[in-house]
Amino acid sequence: MVTKTVDLRSDTVTKPTEAMRAAMADAEVDDDVLCCDPTAQRLETEVAKITGKEAGLFVPSGTMGNLISVLVHCEVRGSEVILGDNCHIQIYENGGISTIGGVHPRTVKNNEDGTMDIDLIEAAIRDPKGALVYPTTRLICLENSHANTGGKCLSVEYTDKVGELAKKHGLKLHIDGARIFNAAVALGVPVDRLVQAADSVSVCISKGLGAPVGSVIVGSESFITKARRLRKTLGGGMRQVGILCAAALVALRDNVGKLESDHKKAKILADGLNKIRGLALNVASVETNIIYFDINEGSNMTVQKLCKNLEEHGILVMPETSTRVRLVVHHQISENDVHYALSCFQRIMMGTPSENGS
Amino acid sequence: MVTKTVDLRSDTVTKPTEAMRAAMADAEVDDDVLCCDPTAQRLETEVAKITGKEAGLFVPSGTMGNLISVLVHCEVRGSEVILGDNCHIQIYENGGISTIGGVHPRTVKNNEDGTMDIDLIEAAIRDPKGALVYPTTRLICLENSHANTGGKCLSVEYTDKVGELAKKHGLKLHIDGARIFNAAVALGVPVDRLVQAADSVSVCISKGLGAPVGSVIVGSESFITKARRLRKTLGGGMRQVGILCAAALVALRDNVGKLESDHKKAKILADGLNKIRGLALNVASVETNIIYFDINEGSNMTVQKLCKNLEEHGILVMPETSTRVRLVVHHQISENDVHYALSCFQRIMMGTPSENGS
Amino acid sequence: MVTKTVDLRSDTVTKPTEAMRAAMADAEVDDDVLCCDPTAQRLETEVAKITGKEAGLFVPSGTMGNLISVLVHCEVRGSEVILGDNCHIQIYENGGISTIGGVHPRTVKNNEDGTMDIDLIEAAIRDPKGALVYPTTRLICLENSHANTGGKCLSVEYTDKVGELAKKHGLKLHIDGARIFNAAVALGVPVDRLVQAADSVSVCISKGLGAPVGSVIVGSESFITKARRLRKTLGGGMRQVGILCAAALVALRDNVGKLESDHKKAKILADGLNKIRGLALNVASVETNIIYFDINEGSNMTVQKLCKNLEEHGILVMPETSTRVRLVVHHQISENDVHYALSCFQRIMMGTPSENGS
Amino acid sequence: MVTKTVDLRSDTVTKPTEAMRAAMADAEVDDDVLCCDPTAQRLETEVAKITGKEAGLFVPSGTMGNLISVLVHCEVRGSEVILGDNCHIQIYENGGISTIGGVHPRTVKNNEDGTMDIDLIEAAIRDPKGALVYPTTRLICLENSHANTGGKCLSVEYTDKVGELAKKHGLKLHIDGARIFNAAVALGVPVDRLVQAADSVSVCISKGLGAPVGSVIVGSESFITKARRLRKTLGGGMRQVGILCAAALVALRDNVGKLESDHKKAKILADGLNKIRGLALNVASVETNIIYFDINEGSNMTVQKLCKNLEEHGILVMPETSTRVRLVVHHQISENDVHYALSCFQRIMMGTPSENGS
Repeated sequence: MVTKTVDLRSDTVTKPTEAMRAAMADAEVDDDVLCCDPTAQRLETEVAKITGKEAGLFVPSGTMGNLISVLVHCEVRGSEVILGDNCHIQIYENGGISTIGGVHPRTVKNNEDGTMDIDLIEAAIRDPKGALVYPTTRLICLENSHANTGGKCLSVEYTDKVGELAKKHGLKLHIDGARIFNAAVALGVPVDRLVQAADSVSVCISKGLGAPVGSVIVGSESFITKARRLRKTLGGGMRQVGILCAAALVALRDNVGKLESDHKKAKILADGLNKIRGLALNVASVETNIIYFDINEGSNMTVQKLCKNLEEHGILVMPETSTRVRLVVHHQISENDVHYALSCFQRIMMGTPSENGS
Repeated sequence: MVTKTVDLRSDTVTKPTEAMRAAMADAEVDDDVLCCDPTAQRLETEVAKITGKEAGLFVPSGTMGNLISVLVHCEVRGSEVILGDNCHIQIYENGGISTIGGVHPRTVKNNEDGTMDIDLIEAAIRDPKGALVYPTTRLICLENSHANTGGKCLSVEYTDKVGELAKKHGLKLHIDGARIFNAAVALGVPVDRLVQAADSVSVCISKGLGAPVGSVIVGSESFITKARRLRKTLGGGMRQVGILCAAALVALRDNVGKLESDHKKAKILADGLNKIRGLALNVASVETNIIYFDINEGSNMTVQKLCKNLEEHGILVMPETSTRVRLVVHHQISENDVHYALSCFQRIMMGTPSENGS
Repeated sequence: MVTKTVDLRSDTVTKPTEAMRAAMADAEVDDDVLCCDPTAQRLETEVAKITGKEAGLFVPSGTMGNLISVLVHCEVRGSEVILGDNCHIQIYENGGISTIGGVHPRTVKNNEDGTMDIDLIEAAIRDPKGALVYPTTRLICLENSHANTGGKCLSVEYTDKVGELAKKHGLKLHIDGARIFNAAVALGVPVDRLVQAADSVSVCISKGLGAPVGSVIVGSESFITKARRLRKTLGGGMRQVGILCAAALVALRDNVGKLESDHKKAKILADGLNKIRGLALNVASVETNIIYFDINEGSNMTVQKLCKNLEEHGILVMPETSTRVRLVVHHQISENDVHYALSCFQRIMMGTPSENGS
Repeated sequence: MVTKTVDLRSDTVTKPTEAMRAAMADAEVDDDVLCCDPTAQRLETEVAKITGKEAGLFVPSGTMGNLISVLVHCEVRGSEVILGDNCHIQIYENGGISTIGGVHPRTVKNNEDGTMDIDLIEAAIRDPKGALVYPTTRLICLENSHANTGGKCLSVEYTDKVGELAKKHGLKLHIDGARIFNAAVALGVPVDRLVQAADSVSVCISKGLGAPVGSVIVGSESFITKARRLRKTLGGGMRQVGILCAAALVALRDNVGKLESDHKKAKILADGLNKIRGLALNVASVETNIIYFDINEGSNMTVQKLCKNLEEHGILVMPETSTRVRLVVHHQISENDVHYALSCFQRIMMGTPSENGS
């Protein structure tokens, strides 16, 4: 009988804390579409300040944050955006920038550290002299930390360089900062420094920070004015949204400080998994709270079977491919949970006689 | 000094009740994007049941509810939708069905009672034989109650007739039911009967029903499956959204029963305004909770001045045009508020100097 | 046995003249996509001159001419265009401005003379202060002559007034001038004066002017630069297009002078039809080369039967509705053809015993 | 003084032959929008037969042919197409499939032979189980011959394999066959066999085949019905288009047989260039009529200077990058032209002073 659930599928699964629930119950609210909800304003101001940008806008999801940001920067028909071939916008957002926004993506290979080579980015920028047959490059997107490569952090130096490149070519730079706090903590730099080169950032409050719902996009005043209108067009304008923003403010206050511990727990988990026969991962590559491991070919364990067995022990993980599994650590995973999970992995993998087994 | 605010701008301005706040603080939640939040599911099931449809989906706004509905019914490029020239989708939703969805609108004149003439609708349906030069008509949209004509109710008979027409031509029928409960209460029919002919309905919980945020769209299982995906594309998928849905469930439980009283207060307000010299409105036309009045040409009052003077007394109203003002009554407007508002109108229109006046 | 075809369906059915065929056979050509075809350049310069605009661009059809023009003026996402509810763009172009261009149309009633009331146009312009929920009005479209109302001409005065209105509100004015030469001839004004207020005009060379293919859009240099790129995007860039442009230059040289005669023949045709029992039309309303007539309700003739009988006599006409038929006169319809057609109409309509007939 | 122009920029620069001009002057034509032009029909039937497909449609350009094909296969909102990262559609068509069509591209690396690895294509197909966050893969595009890799031919075997993969996953296969005749001739297979696996092909008649304007897309009857409508939407429907189709029929009759000779001349040109000091190319890689060469780093020649010097000798070439130049051979380049060009290259690269030199 399972009595405990250790949900390692994503850091989006966190439940609101008591403090968040209390804040939501007490939130001062108003109609944020007719004008402005005071709690939403406080949150937007707070995130703008943390990120060093002029203004912010609360949106119901990171997907909407990215969609709005790309569409504002690419408001003229015939725009192209340069982004990683393995980034969240390209892979996991339904192709919305094209199917909803009519923006043409030009992908550049994402390296294992989440970067794209600067010279490849530059080569992908369209020559304005070819404007008869080329779309107009208007935007470069980065993702920091970069989820699909295992939560890798883009450094200040790298980000600045991409920013310089963007400026040189008259382009904008957007950062999908769904986990920008994880990156900042892991890199040991303030968030505002890390995103200094960006014209806009989408910051998620409902991933590692643990708020129930929402992201905040930040940028210049004029960017946010256009973003607000586009949010309404998409149907993301919400009325007494201060309820959600109140929880987000608690998340910012209480949970940023827990990210370092999350990363430590992720390291422990990675270390432990690495020691389990039949599983393979690169411990050094775990920079933040995301872990990918592979089941060795030699092993006769399958991802499907492993997930099923883990679930019987109350442990939820995310199958990625037929050989790969993702784990994400968050503030509601204790060190005890990590050890419990590791012991379950151990037992399940050991209980699986190897191909040449005894 | 103003101590009280009587906010008559819209029924979207309601604040969550204590019961809603308590429900939000206690809500059982889960990640509604990864799978499903139990409270969201309860709400979606409840609204589906009330409307007599197979399934429901919570969305952050009525605008998204309409946008998703139109786009699901018009999923093939080259679609046209028939809708009223004075309906919310055409006038107040940023043209999103075209600018985001690429759907071509064909408007039919909205009569003063919110209907479109059936024969005009039929004439607007494109002949499939002309498909070389015509877009394909795929959808008819109604709005019930119809906001811009003053909250007018479309009858069961009318709705059924439009539904028959749609069926005859192989079209879908969507109802923008932002205030469908107001219409059902005013008409004295159950909601499910009123929308029986519709393939989809967008039901707002954050207008007259007073929940802080959100609408629910309802339709067939296959409609909702497509809608769920499109909600993700637009960025309307939210994580622990049960917080908001918990308040919506309270709204459905507690506030549907208050709508009849809202309509009575609206009648009192309309009656009173009608007796004030310089203001003109048709009391009989007030069927639900929305009132439009005009300032008589003879009067030397302007909408701008009137709104400003009212605001000094804590009364907020919505200027519509240079001669027209909108008022909306909701459950947080008491009968006393109505009388207070009327007395302020009376004084202002009579030229009585304001409180601080000399 | 039919030996002669009198094709009155449209002025698009004309065949290239011997002079056009010779010009096409001799045309100097080059790759108009890589750079520029000299004959295309001559045509574009010529039409720009005639219309008093800076530059021109040859496009394969009037539909592309309108589509490109609307999309250039509405290049920013979230644009709205004001146009007649009975104009060609709204009715006969597949809704392309929305389904391909994402532009939101706002229709204003077309009067019987092809105009829209100026005050209705002004009322349809969105207040920029409402930009949170309103699309941005960017363009007004007129159509001159106005096909669906029977080839009615918009006067210089009317066009100028709409132009002033556009300027006052910072909007652009596009004229669908598919038959602008017909209008200019009928009004007795030069084309450049007639379209003086317009920012762009789409001029068809393959309707009354009789060229086999194509339209020319005209406007400012910067408009044409953007139009050229969009033409490429849509796939309207053609290589040795001077072939077609050579015929268009002949059409401009030879056939503008024939339009007055076309209008006279249309009058004769209208007069004759009007005298035929069972047919109804307003002769005075025939201002150019388009005639609409209705079959009287009393008659037991149907449009379908009439068209079939006419076709047996080699006369092709365009059924519009179940009671209405369109005829268009062009330079390849002689006065003899008109009289032959009338005699056929006469015989067919007389041979049809009336409902109460003996 | 230059007396001769040898235009090696592209095979689109060919001028219509006398036979084509005569055919255009004599062409039987009719209104192809109202119904159908007989010469267009003959051409469409002919190309359908050659390619082994049910039906064809003439379009003004290869870009429109590809755009229509992709949009017909991806008619439902939310579609994704898999295509080469270096293919014409992705690089040179203004991103129209996204910016006009709202289709999301997913690129796969193009190998040097123009192929994409089959397993990479398969990996790029979206798992329908992930449809909440993934767009729906609906189409794979190939390009044969593949221009940007130097006119490389995709074999029957490869094309069939991609076709099988498409079928296995319920996808469609479109071939951009702008130069499919070059590929068929070079491979020594009939065109219909080469494109057997494709659901649609866009065949250009105005490249190597030398017609002045146009492409023909081919596919099933139902594909062409949808394509015809979309052609009208885009503005590609042309009236007496038989003029252009008459030249295209001559091109098919007269010029397919010349392609083998074009390829031979390209080989001679490549061989010659390869022997010139300072230029680098892989002669073996020249399979059809396209040649790319690089200027060696050691050389002090630049692309800009080379192009300018060549132009002074009447030789036009296409600069691609700062080190790379493209040459295309076509039926209006004689073997003498090739030798003349080679001698000019030789002199320029050797530093021999130009004709007017001291």
